[in-house]
Amino acid sequence: MAQHRTRRSSDHETLQKEKGHVNLIPLGGLEEIGRNMSYVEYKDEIVIVDAGIQFPEETTPGVDFIIPNVSSLESKKSHIKALVLTHAHFDHIGALPYLTERLGNPPIYTMELTKALIEKRQNEFTNAPKLVVETVKYGDKKRVGQYLELEFFGVDHTVPETSGIVIKTPIGNIVHFADFRLEYNEKGEPQNTAEFKRIGEMGVHTFMIDSTNAEEEGHSLSEKNIEKNLEKLFEQAQGRIILTTFSSMLTRIAEIIKIAERLGRKVSINGRSMKEGVQIAQSLGYIKSKKDTLIPVEDIHKHKDNKVLILTTGSQGQENAGLMRIMTGEHRYIRIKPGDMVLFSSSAIPGNERSIQTLKDNLSRQGALVITSSIIDIHVSGHAPKGDLEAVIKLIKPKFLMPVHGYYFMRFANGQNGVAAGLRPDQVRLMDNGQIAHLTEHEFVITKETVPANYVLVDGLGVGDVGEVVLRDRRMLSQEGMFVIITTIDKKTGRVLKNPDIISRGFIYLKENQTLLDEIRKRVRGIIGRIPRYQPLDADYVKSLIRDQVGQFLYNKTKRRPMVLPVLIEI
Amino acid sequence: MAQHRTRRSSDHETLQKEKGHVNLIPLGGLEEIGRNMSYVEYKDEIVIVDAGIQFPEETTPGVDFIIPNVSSLESKKSHIKALVLTHAHFDHIGALPYLTERLGNPPIYTMELTKALIEKRQNEFTNAPKLVVETVKYGDKKRVGQYLELEFFGVDHTVPETSGIVIKTPIGNIVHFADFRLEYNEKGEPQNTAEFKRIGEMGVHTFMIDSTNAEEEGHSLSEKNIEKNLEKLFEQAQGRIILTTFSSMLTRIAEIIKIAERLGRKVSINGRSMKEGVQIAQSLGYIKSKKDTLIPVEDIHKHKDNKVLILTTGSQGQENAGLMRIMTGEHRYIRIKPGDMVLFSSSAIPGNERSIQTLKDNLSRQGALVITSSIIDIHVSGHAPKGDLEAVIKLIKPKFLMPVHGYYFMRFANGQNGVAAGLRPDQVRLMDNGQIAHLTEHEFVITKETVPANYVLVDGLGVGDVGEVVLRDRRMLSQEGMFVIITTIDKKTGRVLKNPDIISRGFIYLKENQTLLDEIRKRVRGIIGRIPRYQPLDADYVKSLIRDQVGQFLYNKTKRRPMVLPVLIEI
Repeated sequence: MAQHRTRRSSDHETLQKEKGHVNLIPLGGLEEIGRNMSYVEYKDEIVIVDAGIQFPEETTPGVDFIIPNVSSLESKKSHIKALVLTHAHFDHIGALPYLTERLGNPPIYTMELTKALIEKRQNEFTNAPKLVVETVKYGDKKRVGQYLELEFFGVDHTVPETSGIVIKTPIGNIVHFADFRLEYNEKGEPQNTAEFKRIGEMGVHTFMIDSTNAEEEGHSLSEKNIEKNLEKLFEQAQGRIILTTFSSMLTRIAEIIKIAERLGRKVSINGRSMKEGVQIAQSLGYIKSKKDTLIPVEDIHKHKDNKVLILTTGSQGQENAGLMRIMTGEHRYIRIKPGDMVLFSSSAIPGNERSIQTLKDNLSRQGALVITSSIIDIHVSGHAPKGDLEAVIKLIKPKFLMPVHGYYFMRFANGQNGVAAGLRPDQVRLMDNGQIAHLTEHEFVITKETVPANYVLVDGLGVGDVGEVVLRDRRMLSQEGMFVIITTIDKKTGRVLKNPDIISRGFIYLKENQTLLDEIRKRVRGIIGRIPRYQPLDADYVKSLIRDQVGQFLYNKTKRRPMVLPVLIEI
Repeated sequence: MAQHRTRRSSDHETLQKEKGHVNLIPLGGLEEIGRNMSYVEYKDEIVIVDAGIQFPEETTPGVDFIIPNVSSLESKKSHIKALVLTHAHFDHIGALPYLTERLGNPPIYTMELTKALIEKRQNEFTNAPKLVVETVKYGDKKRVGQYLELEFFGVDHTVPETSGIVIKTPIGNIVHFADFRLEYNEKGEPQNTAEFKRIGEMGVHTFMIDSTNAEEEGHSLSEKNIEKNLEKLFEQAQGRIILTTFSSMLTRIAEIIKIAERLGRKVSINGRSMKEGVQIAQSLGYIKSKKDTLIPVEDIHKHKDNKVLILTTGSQGQENAGLMRIMTGEHRYIRIKPGDMVLFSSSAIPGNERSIQTLKDNLSRQGALVITSSIIDIHVSGHAPKGDLEAVIKLIKPKFLMPVHGYYFMRFANGQNGVAAGLRPDQVRLMDNGQIAHLTEHEFVITKETVPANYVLVDGLGVGDVGEVVLRDRRMLSQEGMFVIITTIDKKTGRVLKNPDIISRGFIYLKENQTLLDEIRKRVRGIIGRIPRYQPLDADYVKSLIRDQVGQFLYNKTKRRPMVLPVLIEI
């Protein structure tokens, strides 16, 4: 550092050349929602921000989830000075147990709540190494190498202790706002902005900014409004209140418990992930309830219906989650009864709409009064819309705006927000996952170099072993099913030894289609019968004949194209 | 009829008994969006309303679409006096070609535009019979039997000639509003309500009412607003305008062509279904354009960019539709260029969100300015929200309100709209598909009797041959793939003749997992080796051993459960 400081006074241009550049490399989160991970590299020092998962998509059937590709970091393990985790949501921390070892178990910098949650989860992975965590607080500054320093600051989101970060580098400050939104007071003035102003005044080279709601108009609805609406509804409830939300929404959960206490209701937590989250938040003082407010589900019946509030998992209609088990009658202690008020204080994750609809339908059929955010505002996103984004960009005043967290179109829209906030269009940088940007004092150049950033799929115990071929087969199988034809042939004579066996699944119900099968068997025998016998059988050729001719025959008969898989057994 | 009229003057109660009841039977549309079809039956006279399709869901992979089950009508073909088609949308007419014959090709009552569209489509089905259509106009009354009479009236929707219907029966009038919303004038007053008032004053027994948007607050945004917003955007466009919407939104398409003419832009229609719709609407006078306004796509280059508007299919990001082909560069004449303004005047059908996102992302990457309804209101639903629904219920004043078109929860919400409009809760009737209601002069009793109303799946040429077993297999295959093990055994000795063959798809990439395969082969040989030889081989028993043991082995190794399919070939 001493040396570095001395140099500051030397000729500026020479210095710039010597300084070289910072690499900024997003590994995920720029062409999807989730899988957030990026890193900053200067000489042999690397700071990583987040290590999130993405939920599977229609194109990745059967997969548990998708994690970032860290192969570009594996050869540089020793350079990793810090892995910063901005907050305790799975799209920012979920990939950690799979990556800890690949990254050489680097020092993690995060706040207390996130620390507790990642350590809890790490324990569930028997082979994952123990994490090395340095706890930080808002305002902390941490030098993590010769050149790189971190400074942490608070942002508002739906989980406590969400932390923005300044990465101080020799070419300037890179600011990352994590996931955030603004809170407003009753006059509509944004809160906690003094800190953002201070950061802006430090000078910001690049501002990495959340784009999840960059297309939404207006300002964030205050979480306080949501709480007011919830309280009003709670007051109207004649019977039990059953409220479901994401178990990661610990800020709201804490508030709901407070409201319940005010209204004299006991609170029971249903669902493992919510129980764990509440326990950890309690132990850290984020949830402060009287001793007897929280009751176990098995004690619910000891209290009057209008003195009970049940907080449950399952807002997405997931098959085995809390609310679904209540609805189906599988829950040991809780069943829906007329008079129950069921509140969905959540939004639908795309792909879950149909399950949620079924859940709401059946709760309503069973006599519950179901209330969702489409009826009254009882949920608000944790992500800043246009109004918030513009306000923050005006305070940070970066040289370069780099929208992150979202599809290209959302990030493009966020770039427009930057322009609306007074930036020139040429200050906006839209990168893709895996691209390498070179940052120098006055420049942000997206180079043509890239690192691998493709999906890494987690399926059961396998990490990365489900690739494009397997996925393509799954998609094909799900559309038209498959059709296996096994033909046994005498190796010497080339004759078919027995009637071909056929197995088919997902195509048509075979028992009802014997004629079709008989015709196919006849065709297969015909194909093999027509092959001249004077030379050894070319199995691949015969199989391709069967595949094509049976495939075409099935298509003509049904206009469907199952996957036809011929097998030749030569005896 | 003369007899019937004479009876009117006789003692009321006897008459009531003699009259018996009307059966009201919904076959589809009450637990889904789509597949709309219901019928009214009095003695041996039946009137059917609509025959729609439903789009496939996550639980019905590979299926083309879902149609209503009409088996309860097949034995009563001769009783069907009328099939009324309320409007030309697929969720109301799409099942027609598949059902015409099963229903005995009954007389269809519909308006001219719908007639033209269903006849056009029927021609594409070579084996479907020619339709028998009686064209009706708003205000027409049609007696269709001794007891039943129909009266048609206009409602506002997104396609011209949408028709509500009064079914006059001996027990009272059943009113069906099709899909509808209200139009408002500049003062915010609902339009065309005199007609609804008149119908209400005729006395209404049962009001079947659209619930699609029953959970949405407020009143319909006027289509005129949408058109104003579109015109403003068109005026700002510097280059070409490319607008995509549902090709069934003929009302809006007609208006867009008018606006384009005002602004001196030529209009080119891209995509088969939109071309056909526009042609038919033109021939019926719904689209009135100057002779040279519409130009073929191959002539676009002859005009300046700012004089061209392209109307295209593909608003849902469908693979082969117009806009997708433009984006991918597959289109013969149109490619995106910077300066193009692309407007999505449509909403996302659930399930299509991801494809639409990819489409928007790539259009934006190619330099187009992409505008969607989340940015400016350039789309409005054709379905009435709460405000409209309440207003209409107040005018119709039915004895019974029967919400249709939507999931239970939506229909429940629509019942609440009825109560808000002044009905007593006991006047609301929430039926399920297939239930039979008995309607008498003062009653609407949902009986315990039902008719079959399960999904009938259309897949390729097959109608109804994809059942629950096939679907379950497709779902399983898509999640974990399949694993076929073929073991060849000497019939006499019971010994394995050759190393077992394995075919697997959608599980893991076999080429990279030879060790796993070898181990499985060893296990299969072991299983068969351990079977005593003193009695004939029980093939089913051996197969179940292989299935269980290999399945368990694969699960232990991978935590996945592919479909294991053992085959024994005895030679």
